[in-house]
Amino acid sequence: MPEVRAYACDDKTTQFHPTTVTIPEAGPQDITFEIKYAGICHSDIHTAREEWGPAKFPLTPGHEIAGIVTQVGSEVTKYKVGDKVGVGCMVNSCGTCEYCQAGEEQYCVGDGGTLWTYGDDAQGNPTAGGYAQGFTVNQDFAARIPDEIPFETAAPLLCAGITTYSPLKRWGAGPGKKVAVVGLGGLGHMGVQIAAAMGAEVSVISQTRSKEEDGKKFGATDYHALSEEGTLENLRGTFDLILCTVSADDLDYSGLLATLKPMGVFVDVGLPENPTTLHLAGLVIGSKVMAGSQIGGMAETQEMLEFCAEHGVHPQVELISGEEITEAYNNVVNSKVRYRYVIDTATF
Amino acid sequence: MPEVRAYACDDKTTQFHPTTVTIPEAGPQDITFEIKYAGICHSDIHTAREEWGPAKFPLTPGHEIAGIVTQVGSEVTKYKVGDKVGVGCMVNSCGTCEYCQAGEEQYCVGDGGTLWTYGDDAQGNPTAGGYAQGFTVNQDFAARIPDEIPFETAAPLLCAGITTYSPLKRWGAGPGKKVAVVGLGGLGHMGVQIAAAMGAEVSVISQTRSKEEDGKKFGATDYHALSEEGTLENLRGTFDLILCTVSADDLDYSGLLATLKPMGVFVDVGLPENPTTLHLAGLVIGSKVMAGSQIGGMAETQEMLEFCAEHGVHPQVELISGEEITEAYNNVVNSKVRYRYVIDTATF
Repeated sequence: MPEVRAYACDDKTTQFHPTTVTIPEAGPQDITFEIKYAGICHSDIHTAREEWGPAKFPLTPGHEIAGIVTQVGSEVTKYKVGDKVGVGCMVNSCGTCEYCQAGEEQYCVGDGGTLWTYGDDAQGNPTAGGYAQGFTVNQDFAARIPDEIPFETAAPLLCAGITTYSPLKRWGAGPGKKVAVVGLGGLGHMGVQIAAAMGAEVSVISQTRSKEEDGKKFGATDYHALSEEGTLENLRGTFDLILCTVSADDLDYSGLLATLKPMGVFVDVGLPENPTTLHLAGLVIGSKVMAGSQIGGMAETQEMLEFCAEHGVHPQVELISGEEITEAYNNVVNSKVRYRYVIDTATF
Repeated sequence: MPEVRAYACDDKTTQFHPTTVTIPEAGPQDITFEIKYAGICHSDIHTAREEWGPAKFPLTPGHEIAGIVTQVGSEVTKYKVGDKVGVGCMVNSCGTCEYCQAGEEQYCVGDGGTLWTYGDDAQGNPTAGGYAQGFTVNQDFAARIPDEIPFETAAPLLCAGITTYSPLKRWGAGPGKKVAVVGLGGLGHMGVQIAAAMGAEVSVISQTRSKEEDGKKFGATDYHALSEEGTLENLRGTFDLILCTVSADDLDYSGLLATLKPMGVFVDVGLPENPTTLHLAGLVIGSKVMAGSQIGGMAETQEMLEFCAEHGVHPQVELISGEEITEAYNNVVNSKVRYRYVIDTATF
């Protein structure tokens, strides 16, 4: 099996250092590609810091991956050497259950269920993610990255992009709809751009006004700061759709639900650590909806990439070297990133 | 203005006694009808006992009303004297806002908003509900009661019926869908019948097995008791749709959400007094939906009545006299009613 350069951490203190990882030989249905860029998603940090349970170390995270195909298996029809491809949160599924058949592989209920990008393979052996120089994946779990998307910005689309595109599409963001995006981080700054590109009138709801200029640059027409008194009260009955990208335990969910119009939808992609409290009356009165959303299927991921290419939407990234990963983790946790760190694997 | 016999209570101890109330003269667009039957909804009790805020006394509640038209205004086209009609939770709205235009008058955002059946009229004067022998209403806020529905059972359809029909329809109860109804009371026993009539495979989730026989009679194929250990764990990933009719503060919402399939919907019509706690991760993983539902519009109310007539669905009622209202309130609170009290106003 090929060995490639990578970065890993050895425990939950997440001190990253250079290493090598072996990647599988491409089987008949697989492609191997040289990873060029890998985004740092907050969920990498939760995983590596064992905030979501025990992790296997040494750990090479990364599920926002962009690279160039170097090898294709004998039965591969979708890609050829030299193609630009991306891999997101998942790398395989049963292919036959009702969810796989419906193109929603992230809900696979077949044998073993969805196989996530790093962690364990189907045999329980640890696997490496995107903080490495190479990757092998079944062709059905890669997506084609259109040339119109600046390549060094593309990696975060594979998680932050699809995570915001899918719920905005499912819940009808579009012309005539007032959409609020709560939080302007890695996910939020994609949500604002995508909702605006879908034709909605977009507001940002953020903690402070520090990102107001950016929010408007991304396509928002309004910007509201929760730190200012009366913000949610003044917005009562305003929005058709709220996309919440925040994972804070102290968010005022009942107050946010009150800013929805009747039959409005609050869709959450954040994962607060502790349980949330809300008055169910806030859902019943006005027949409102509180939904969650978990990434998106492979077909929708490809659709999202085409949409972003067509509308000139892409993440705003800060390119960093392998040596900077450790510090980048701290900056993400402290909301200092504008708006996504992308590791340039040429620096490994 | 005509005076009719009625029952009222004078304070939140809800001791009901005979009285008279005046009802408005029918205007050109109004009908006046003789109330024959009035259902007792738990929300009447919450209101009269001031559990939802101060009430105006003397109070004549009732928003599940069935009667026979005795007078029609000069411009009334929909009804004639002798017609069987029903009135539910609302009696007027602006008619011109986007929600009224869409047939969702319960969300009216026009001047004054939706006018509810008892409480205050548009001028702030107290109005009487259905525990009376007469009622006057705009023809657009009455519904025609089909002859196929046993008349003495029809009144609860105007609240319990539409409150369960609307979310079951909106969220796709039908053939091939597994639907659970949580709680088998006034609302739940309608939800089971309606979901089964829509073609869904229906389960009841109740506190104990005391109503198992009834649940199956109403059309459920399965019955689960929360009092038995492991009930929710064993149901993980089972349902497409859950209709929750319970207002208990201690319901295990996270456990119930876990019984949904991916993309499943939990729709609540209960109004717990205190805030509910749940893990948002339970919505995000599997892209699940938690929705509320508030009655239904007038067109949908008529549709529900036709549906019930066609499918032989009607509430199971216990007919009571005016003198029994006080005791009936206590029985409802103590879950002793099977399954809806209906007041026979001929006993006034």
